[in-house]
Amino acid sequence: MLDTIRSAYERFGFVEIETPVFERSEVLLTKTGGETERQVYFVQSTGAMERESTTDDVPDLALRFDLTVPLARYVAEHQNELAFPFKGYQIQRVYRGERSQRGRFREFYQCDIDVVDRENLSLRHDAEVPAVINEVFRQIGVGPFTIRINSRLLMAGLVADVGVDAPQLAAAALRELDKLDKRPTHAVATTLEDLGLHPTAVERLIATVSTVVRGSTAAIAHLRSLDSAEPRVIRAVEDLCVVFETLADLGVPEDAYALDLGVVRGLDYYTGTVYETTLDDHPEIGSVCSGGRYDDLAGLYTDTRLPGVGISIGLTRLFSQLREADLLRSTSTSVTVYVTIMDEGGVASALRLATMLRSNGINTDMASEPGRLGNQLKHADRIGSRFALIAGEEERSRGVVAIRDLVTGDQIEVAAEAAAATLEARLRAGES
Amino acid sequence: MLDTIRSAYERFGFVEIETPVFERSEVLLTKTGGETERQVYFVQSTGAMERESTTDDVPDLALRFDLTVPLARYVAEHQNELAFPFKGYQIQRVYRGERSQRGRFREFYQCDIDVVDRENLSLRHDAEVPAVINEVFRQIGVGPFTIRINSRLLMAGLVADVGVDAPQLAAAALRELDKLDKRPTHAVATTLEDLGLHPTAVERLIATVSTVVRGSTAAIAHLRSLDSAEPRVIRAVEDLCVVFETLADLGVPEDAYALDLGVVRGLDYYTGTVYETTLDDHPEIGSVCSGGRYDDLAGLYTDTRLPGVGISIGLTRLFSQLREADLLRSTSTSVTVYVTIMDEGGVASALRLATMLRSNGINTDMASEPGRLGNQLKHADRIGSRFALIAGEEERSRGVVAIRDLVTGDQIEVAAEAAAATLEARLRAGES
Repeated sequence: MLDTIRSAYERFGFVEIETPVFERSEVLLTKTGGETERQVYFVQSTGAMERESTTDDVPDLALRFDLTVPLARYVAEHQNELAFPFKGYQIQRVYRGERSQRGRFREFYQCDIDVVDRENLSLRHDAEVPAVINEVFRQIGVGPFTIRINSRLLMAGLVADVGVDAPQLAAAALRELDKLDKRPTHAVATTLEDLGLHPTAVERLIATVSTVVRGSTAAIAHLRSLDSAEPRVIRAVEDLCVVFETLADLGVPEDAYALDLGVVRGLDYYTGTVYETTLDDHPEIGSVCSGGRYDDLAGLYTDTRLPGVGISIGLTRLFSQLREADLLRSTSTSVTVYVTIMDEGGVASALRLATMLRSNGINTDMASEPGRLGNQLKHADRIGSRFALIAGEEERSRGVVAIRDLVTGDQIEVAAEAAAATLEARLRAGES
Repeated sequence: MLDTIRSAYERFGFVEIETPVFERSEVLLTKTGGETERQVYFVQSTGAMERESTTDDVPDLALRFDLTVPLARYVAEHQNELAFPFKGYQIQRVYRGERSQRGRFREFYQCDIDVVDRENLSLRHDAEVPAVINEVFRQIGVGPFTIRINSRLLMAGLVADVGVDAPQLAAAALRELDKLDKRPTHAVATTLEDLGLHPTAVERLIATVSTVVRGSTAAIAHLRSLDSAEPRVIRAVEDLCVVFETLADLGVPEDAYALDLGVVRGLDYYTGTVYETTLDDHPEIGSVCSGGRYDDLAGLYTDTRLPGVGISIGLTRLFSQLREADLLRSTSTSVTVYVTIMDEGGVASALRLATMLRSNGINTDMASEPGRLGNQLKHADRIGSRFALIAGEEERSRGVVAIRDLVTGDQIEVAAEAAAATLEARLRAGES
C-alpha cells in the first residue's frame, strides 16, 4: 500500500521530503487548541530532565502531530534552494498522546502531498491534489469513492448571504451544521435558532449544506446557479469552476468527485478549497483523506507569504478500517523462490543456485540446513514464496533442478543454469 | 539509497516489518548503560505530565534508540504466527538525546536485517548477513570495502589462552585492546600490564588482535592454524569455518570480507559472530555497518530462547560521510517529463497530455499556468526533469508536440499521441 501511494505521488511529479519528528513545543501548542493540545507528546532526554526538574515549564521539544507543521518549516527554511511551485510528499509517522489513559500511546502513518508557491499559487493545483488522490484510491482498489470538494470562502459567503455576518457566530453555525450526520435535523435547527439565527436562515443553511453534486459538469452548473451578490460567493464560484474544469481536463472520472457543500470541517484553518474523501460502500468509516488550501502556510517561520494546498491520507486508520471492511487486496510477500536443501552434499550447490537467482534480480530465500522436504515446502508456503527449487543427489548428478509451483502444485525439471530464465518466463506469464 | 538497500534486502528473502517508536522506559534502561542511558529520550503527553508531576519517577515511555529492542519485542509477540527462521528487515528512525546541550536532538535512520530462530539458529545465517551487506555496498557504489568478521567466543577463548580467565579482567583487557587504533601500541601495552597481565600475554594479545586475513581460503587456513586446547577456541574455529565456507559458496568476492581479530567492540552484548564494515579508501570514517549474533534475543519478553543474528547500517551517518567523502553517485529526481503551457488555449491539452503520460507510468510534472518558455524550461531543469514537452498553438493545430531533451538540448517533434512511446524508447535507450 505504501509503495502504491508512493508511486502515484511520483507519477504526478511530487518529490519525497524527510522532515524531523521533533518540533519546538511552543510551535505545536500555537497550532493546536483544546483537545489536540492535550494530545501533544513532549520529549526530554535524561540530561534535560535533570536540569529542568525544578521548573514547571513544558519541555522544549515535542513530537509532531501532523506533517503540515514540519512541511511549513521545511519550505520556509529551504525557500532559497527550492524550485517553486514546490511539490513535495511525505510518508511518515505522526504522534498523538491519549489524554486519559496512562501508558496508552498512538503513532500512525500519514501520507501527505502539498504544493507550495511564493505569493500566489495557481488554482490548477487545487485540482491536481484530488487528481492524485483519485489515482491513489483507484490503485489501492478500495471500491468506489467520492472526493468531496468545497470552499471555505464559499461557505463564509453563503452564511453571510442568510444574514449571519459576525465571524464567531458564523463559525458556531458551521460547527453545528457539521453535526447533521450525527444529530437529527430538527435538533440542529433548534440549536441554530438558539444561537440567534432566523428560522428562514436556518432552513436555507440546512438546504445548502445538504447539496452534493457529482462530477464536473453538474458541479459547475450548480455553482453558476448560485444567485448571490456577496463578493466572497462570486469569487469562490469562479475559483471552484477552475478547479472542476481542470479536474475534467485531467481526465478524473466524473463519478470520483463531487461538489459537497456539507464539507465544513477544518474550515477554521483552511482558507480556500477543502477536501474530504469517503468510500461509497462504507460511509460509516467517514473521511479517509482530507485537506485544503492555506493562504499562508508558514507564517510562523518566515515573512514570505507561502500559500499551499495539500491533502493527507491517515494511512494507519485507513488500513485498519479497510481490513475490517475486508476491502484490502491480499498483498503477496516479497519472496519469489525458496531453494530447498535435501542433503549435506547439496548445501554448496543450493547456495550457488540462490546467488545465481539473486543476481538475476529474483527475490530468493533458502533453507539453511538439510531437512525433510515436506517441512521445507511448508516453510516456503508460509513465507509466501511462489516457487520452490528442489535438487537431490540424483538431480544434481544430472545437472538439473525441479521447479515446483507452490500455488498450482505443478513441477517441472530444467537444467540448473536455466532456472533463472525459466522462473522469469513463468513470472511474466503470470503477470499478463 | 533507501530503495537500493530495500531491494537488496528483499533479494535475499527478508521481509519488511514495522515496529513502534515507543518502548517502555524500563526496558530501554535495562538494555543500556553509562553514556547510552543518558541519551534516552523520554516521552509524556500533557495529561500524563499533569498526573505525574508530583513524582520523581522517569516517564513510562521513551523513544527507541536502536531497532534491536523493538525487533525482539516483535518476534516475541508474534512467535506463534511467524515462520521460523524469521528473516526481517527494518528501515526506520531511531532517537538518541544529546546529554549536554539543551535543545539539541538527534534522530537518524537505521537499516537492520535480522534472522531469528527458535532454540537453534543455523550458522549459515551468520554468512547470509554479510552476503546481504556485500550486495548493498556493491549496489550503493561506495568503492572497495571490507566486512570484518570475528567471534566473541573466539576472543574469550584466546584471552583465556594467555592466562586471563576472570571475565571482568578479560572484558577490561578487550576494551583496552580496542583502543589500538587511537592510542600508541606501547601505551596500550602499559595499561594492560597495569591491569595485571604478564608482558608475554600482552605481547601475544596485541599480535592476535592485529590479525586481518582477507578472503575465505586464507581465513579458514588461519583459523585451523590456531593451536589451542581451549574448548571455546575449538568451538569458535569450527563455527567460523562454516561461516567462511558459506560466504565462498554464496559467491561473495574474497576481497570483500576478512577475518579480523581486532573487531572487539560490542563483545559485551553479542555472543557469537560479530561484524564491522569499513571503506578501504576511507578508514577514517570507521565502521559503517555493524552487528553480530545474540544467543537469546528476547529474554526480556519471552521464555522461548530466540537466537538471532543481524546487522545494522547507520544510514544517516553513512550518508553524510559518503557525501563529505564525495562518494555518493548523484541521484536523479523522480520527475521524468515536464509539460509546459505556452498559452491559455493550451491548458486543457497540456492537462490531457500529462494524464496520458502518467497513465503510461511516466512520472510527469507540469506548468500550472501559461508563461514564458524560458522560465518554464528553467523550472523543468531545476526540478531535475529529463525532458520537457512543448506545444504552442501552431504545434497543436498540427497535432504534434516537441520533446526537448534537457540534458543534451536535442529537440524532436512527434505526433502528440506518440509522445509516451517516444519517451519510453528514449528512456530505455538511456538505460542501456
